[in-house]
Amino acid sequence: MALRADRFFDPDPHQREVAMQLYDRVAGLPLICPHGHVDPRMFADPDYSFGTPTEMLIIPDHYVFRMLYSQGVPLEALGVPAQDGIEVEQDHRKIWQTFADHFYLFRGTPTGIWLVQELEEVFGVEEKLTGASAPAVYDRIAAALEKPEFRPHALYKRFNIEVLCTTDAAADSLEYHKAIKASGWEGQVRPTFRPDAVVNIDTEGWRANIDKLSEVSDISIDGYPRFIEALENRRAFFKAMGATATDHAALTAHTGRLSEAEAGTIFRRALKGEAGAEDAARFTAHMLMEMARMSVEDGLVMQLHVGAYRNHNEQLFKRFGRDKGADIPVTSEFTRGLEPLLNAYGADPRLTLVLFTLDETTYARELAPIAGHYPAVRLGPPWWFHDSLNGMARYFDQVMETAGLYNTAGFNDDTRAYPSIPARHDVWRRAACNWIAGLAVRGVVDMDDAHAMAYDCAYKLAKDTYRLGD
Amino acid sequence: MALRADRFFDPDPHQREVAMQLYDRVAGLPLICPHGHVDPRMFADPDYSFGTPTEMLIIPDHYVFRMLYSQGVPLEALGVPAQDGIEVEQDHRKIWQTFADHFYLFRGTPTGIWLVQELEEVFGVEEKLTGASAPAVYDRIAAALEKPEFRPHALYKRFNIEVLCTTDAAADSLEYHKAIKASGWEGQVRPTFRPDAVVNIDTEGWRANIDKLSEVSDISIDGYPRFIEALENRRAFFKAMGATATDHAALTAHTGRLSEAEAGTIFRRALKGEAGAEDAARFTAHMLMEMARMSVEDGLVMQLHVGAYRNHNEQLFKRFGRDKGADIPVTSEFTRGLEPLLNAYGADPRLTLVLFTLDETTYARELAPIAGHYPAVRLGPPWWFHDSLNGMARYFDQVMETAGLYNTAGFNDDTRAYPSIPARHDVWRRAACNWIAGLAVRGVVDMDDAHAMAYDCAYKLAKDTYRLGD
Amino acid sequence: MALRADRFFDPDPHQREVAMQLYDRVAGLPLICPHGHVDPRMFADPDYSFGTPTEMLIIPDHYVFRMLYSQGVPLEALGVPAQDGIEVEQDHRKIWQTFADHFYLFRGTPTGIWLVQELEEVFGVEEKLTGASAPAVYDRIAAALEKPEFRPHALYKRFNIEVLCTTDAAADSLEYHKAIKASGWEGQVRPTFRPDAVVNIDTEGWRANIDKLSEVSDISIDGYPRFIEALENRRAFFKAMGATATDHAALTAHTGRLSEAEAGTIFRRALKGEAGAEDAARFTAHMLMEMARMSVEDGLVMQLHVGAYRNHNEQLFKRFGRDKGADIPVTSEFTRGLEPLLNAYGADPRLTLVLFTLDETTYARELAPIAGHYPAVRLGPPWWFHDSLNGMARYFDQVMETAGLYNTAGFNDDTRAYPSIPARHDVWRRAACNWIAGLAVRGVVDMDDAHAMAYDCAYKLAKDTYRLGD
Repeated sequence: MALRADRFFDPDPHQREVAMQLYDRVAGLPLICPHGHVDPRMFADPDYSFGTPTEMLIIPDHYVFRMLYSQGVPLEALGVPAQDGIEVEQDHRKIWQTFADHFYLFRGTPTGIWLVQELEEVFGVEEKLTGASAPAVYDRIAAALEKPEFRPHALYKRFNIEVLCTTDAAADSLEYHKAIKASGWEGQVRPTFRPDAVVNIDTEGWRANIDKLSEVSDISIDGYPRFIEALENRRAFFKAMGATATDHAALTAHTGRLSEAEAGTIFRRALKGEAGAEDAARFTAHMLMEMARMSVEDGLVMQLHVGAYRNHNEQLFKRFGRDKGADIPVTSEFTRGLEPLLNAYGADPRLTLVLFTLDETTYARELAPIAGHYPAVRLGPPWWFHDSLNGMARYFDQVMETAGLYNTAGFNDDTRAYPSIPARHDVWRRAACNWIAGLAVRGVVDMDDAHAMAYDCAYKLAKDTYRLGD
Repeated sequence: MALRADRFFDPDPHQREVAMQLYDRVAGLPLICPHGHVDPRMFADPDYSFGTPTEMLIIPDHYVFRMLYSQGVPLEALGVPAQDGIEVEQDHRKIWQTFADHFYLFRGTPTGIWLVQELEEVFGVEEKLTGASAPAVYDRIAAALEKPEFRPHALYKRFNIEVLCTTDAAADSLEYHKAIKASGWEGQVRPTFRPDAVVNIDTEGWRANIDKLSEVSDISIDGYPRFIEALENRRAFFKAMGATATDHAALTAHTGRLSEAEAGTIFRRALKGEAGAEDAARFTAHMLMEMARMSVEDGLVMQLHVGAYRNHNEQLFKRFGRDKGADIPVTSEFTRGLEPLLNAYGADPRLTLVLFTLDETTYARELAPIAGHYPAVRLGPPWWFHDSLNGMARYFDQVMETAGLYNTAGFNDDTRAYPSIPARHDVWRRAACNWIAGLAVRGVVDMDDAHAMAYDCAYKLAKDTYRLGD
Repeated sequence: MALRADRFFDPDPHQREVAMQLYDRVAGLPLICPHGHVDPRMFADPDYSFGTPTEMLIIPDHYVFRMLYSQGVPLEALGVPAQDGIEVEQDHRKIWQTFADHFYLFRGTPTGIWLVQELEEVFGVEEKLTGASAPAVYDRIAAALEKPEFRPHALYKRFNIEVLCTTDAAADSLEYHKAIKASGWEGQVRPTFRPDAVVNIDTEGWRANIDKLSEVSDISIDGYPRFIEALENRRAFFKAMGATATDHAALTAHTGRLSEAEAGTIFRRALKGEAGAEDAARFTAHMLMEMARMSVEDGLVMQLHVGAYRNHNEQLFKRFGRDKGADIPVTSEFTRGLEPLLNAYGADPRLTLVLFTLDETTYARELAPIAGHYPAVRLGPPWWFHDSLNGMARYFDQVMETAGLYNTAGFNDDTRAYPSIPARHDVWRRAACNWIAGLAVRGVVDMDDAHAMAYDCAYKLAKDTYRLGD
């Protein structure tokens, strides 16, 4: 189906018209992408290719294959690489056919929305994807991917991206970012410092990660003090490479400072492989305090993503590894959990702390009141499962009255799927304009305010929050 | 008031029109009733009578009398039978008058909606029920109930029911189901295996229930192994009698396997009347694992209803017993609670596990992600207090984007109140069509998809989930 | 901008028209204000002045200054008095300018809505408040405040207030209420008995509060029995002074009776300054039981506000004290917490218990089922952060189907900000009429019922719940 110009707006003609007016002024603004998981290699390698349509759209995208898996299609049949050596489907046309046969599963889902828009706007596919149309659609995308205008640099320009931030391990050498810088290309691709793999001592492979951190920082991490030193060293390096932010994932929002001695003791136990679950929880809580302290000192914006219970499906994890659509949210608590951190740094004008939740009950109850009080805090956009039309509507509904729009952080696409970026921002811009139009037609804000709010949602809040301004 | 043809649809004329189009195609589909509490006796006894209007609509319906109780009308005045021998009102016309005098309490409630529709569509009562109209309405219903077309079999046909599943204790002899089978009647009434009263060792009267289970299974339950044997025996019997599903209620979704020895020890303590609350919780968690194992083996669909804190009002419970509108929900947790069960059986293609919650915060946070990942899991419709227009709207809003429609289980009416069944399904069909129309008018799905989704919601999902297909 | 007559109603023309019809009949009803924090002194002192616009609208209103604080404006710059002797801004025009420069922060917030309506309807300010218009607006308000028609008594009449209840500490002498009575003024200003400061033994300054209670009650509180006696004494005094209600704030809804001996022991420890956090929690739980018992006996309506974690920002608390916009909600639990109290008194026809929550997840899950069952319970209106257009919509959505309208308590403004009272009631009346109009246009209720419901929401439920009837 051809995309409707007024899609996703309220059915009421008046609200739809106002939403359209607001949207028309922001639809063409450059994209600010302050948080995401696009592979920087694609911008460093001028010959980078996305591979087949299946390699681009299915195999790496757990949003896509989890839905087929949930209906009984094994990941093996979708070509997802197994770690245990088992053979998986290699015929990309066959995988594509399976995907198209099941595309009805995505009715009414954000993944469905993104894919339809991506197929039409990026690849010019206007026919509906079904089992019958699958081969023709595959051919069309495959043909497009051969052309130079479908290389990452060309798409960057076509997508009108102003800045795109990647997410990079603390021990990452940032070689691709170096290559991008060296290439003289005019795109703005920035790293983000993500130290989870060395900070959360219960991460699988933690010991090896510490060794790698020692190596890249040239600091021999023999204990807690050198660990801190190495992290500060890497932050400085990331900052020099253009980073303006860090990112932290934690199961809970628990924070709390340990004494230097306690931290040292736990770290020693971890080095010996003797740390327990309680050690890990306390150390993460402590390191969040340390990360906030460092952000106060070096000015890197601190992002905190809370509440994903990782790798819930053990068998799947053993065979296919992390990030396979088997992370399930848990309840989160911020009021008591963040109290130590906010008491120490929440009123410090040097800190910006962007909070993300998977537990929407915290929007109105905890996060909006916190963001509406502490100067350092901004509330990030709806994350992951909630990055959807309804998820955004609930966010606007439950957050904005208490936090105020200006204590929120605009949008980020948080995606690995580069060609889906315009569709994701477009959904946000439409949802935001529809929300603001609802305020305008109800007489809550006037049209001058409405236009300003639409601009802030679409562009300025993200840019300001992440200190990406000029 | 005469029922409006377009009732419950969005006020926007365009969405309402599309909803009406969708509804028109599904309104006449047969009713699939895969879970409910209708008394099978009414189909076994050809002379079954509903009694007076008061006996049919008030005395047995805790949805109705809890509301009057909440406003100070004692259950005694409503004829609800007391267990402690106290006298209750016997004048059914007087009770009806009290009910009608308070009917304004149901304004805007699902019970009000069902009653109005039931009165008009089943009994032809078009005048509004008030204190003034009460006697005339009573007479009209009483007269109707005299007629043969208001016997259960006739209503089954008139209601266009395709299949109706009852809920039956594990130790039930299924005598009425046997009689229905023997009668040669063409209706499809199936039992459902509900072992709560023997599986939850803290149930009042548990020891007597075990004795009854021994008796009907002809297996002397002297310990845990024979207990399991007896359950397997009964499941086979239920299946032979037409059951396609089991049903389990638990305060929490906690699951976890005990060793054979531990299970045996707890069961022994229970037989001696020495088991404590912790024993009961661990045993239930274990038995849910066992029930899933048996479902994998025998193919009975497993239903799990979580989160009702039973008999909150102690005095009321002592006088009137269970199910008197005094069950209050509590917070629920599924992500960690179901992990053992899902790791063991969640990817087994032989299992279907239908989950129900009274804690709507789990829709978007836990249940939709779980249903959108595990092949075995389907999410049941809004349950009990949430079986309402707004409850359904919240369900569609919070579940569908993440779980996808096809990981949900359609509708079930879950009711004891047989004559209310058509009204309940009609509310669901209207709510579903309105939701889908909202997607269509916003350009999220096209009309072909919309019609398919409406059909699936109204009919096919329930039939497929419960393996009631032809 | 000039306020639109149909503001806040649904954009759909039909629903808006019906909402307008409903609203037209209730807009002019007198205001029932059964719970709030207006200073009774303003009615006792015939020469009471609100001071400057800044003193009236900014300095005392934590809804206002928390938002500027969250964006980096220190409370010192807003003239909020510091307890630690530090100097704060004294130039009220300068503070006003800062406020106006940041007024865009209130876009789409309830505070923004109230202020705009208050400025226009109370002070005749129709121009938009901006940095540019700030001085002129200040002048206009300042000029108005000079006039006799802007004295509290005159505004009481103009606002069409029928009754206004204040909130007063148990040890308060009620001198202003005495003076109001003595003055012969025809306004109805009633005290409310709030014993938190003596009942919650972990309150800062608790020991001094007990001494004050001893003094005003003329009962020397040397232990728990005299403490109870003193409370009963004060309740009788408040009742004699016109009180119809009490109010209780607690971090949790935990209730539970202690033995007389246990209560005595904890109280003794508290008198010696040796009570711990666990003591405080158990004592509060016990005292809620006692307060319910006393309410059963003396007929004072019992209000319970649950879930505010007070003084989250420690530095701010040290400098500026309580109630500075730094209270953050936490999750709440009512089903198990209130079980002891409801089992003891929940079916007693003499008790009315009005429950308030900051955790909206409890609306549909716990509070609506509890209010829809227990005769004593009514659910209070959306509180604090949820006293907003969306907060009200969520309340109507999540509460009404299960609780029924007639188990709710109407509206209260809960405000310190006297001139904002009409705007707050108007938002509620509009939101309620819009909700009811939504039911009417969907065919859920007829127009007769709709008008009755609008009247009940706007006026009668609050009056009846708080026993303020004639």
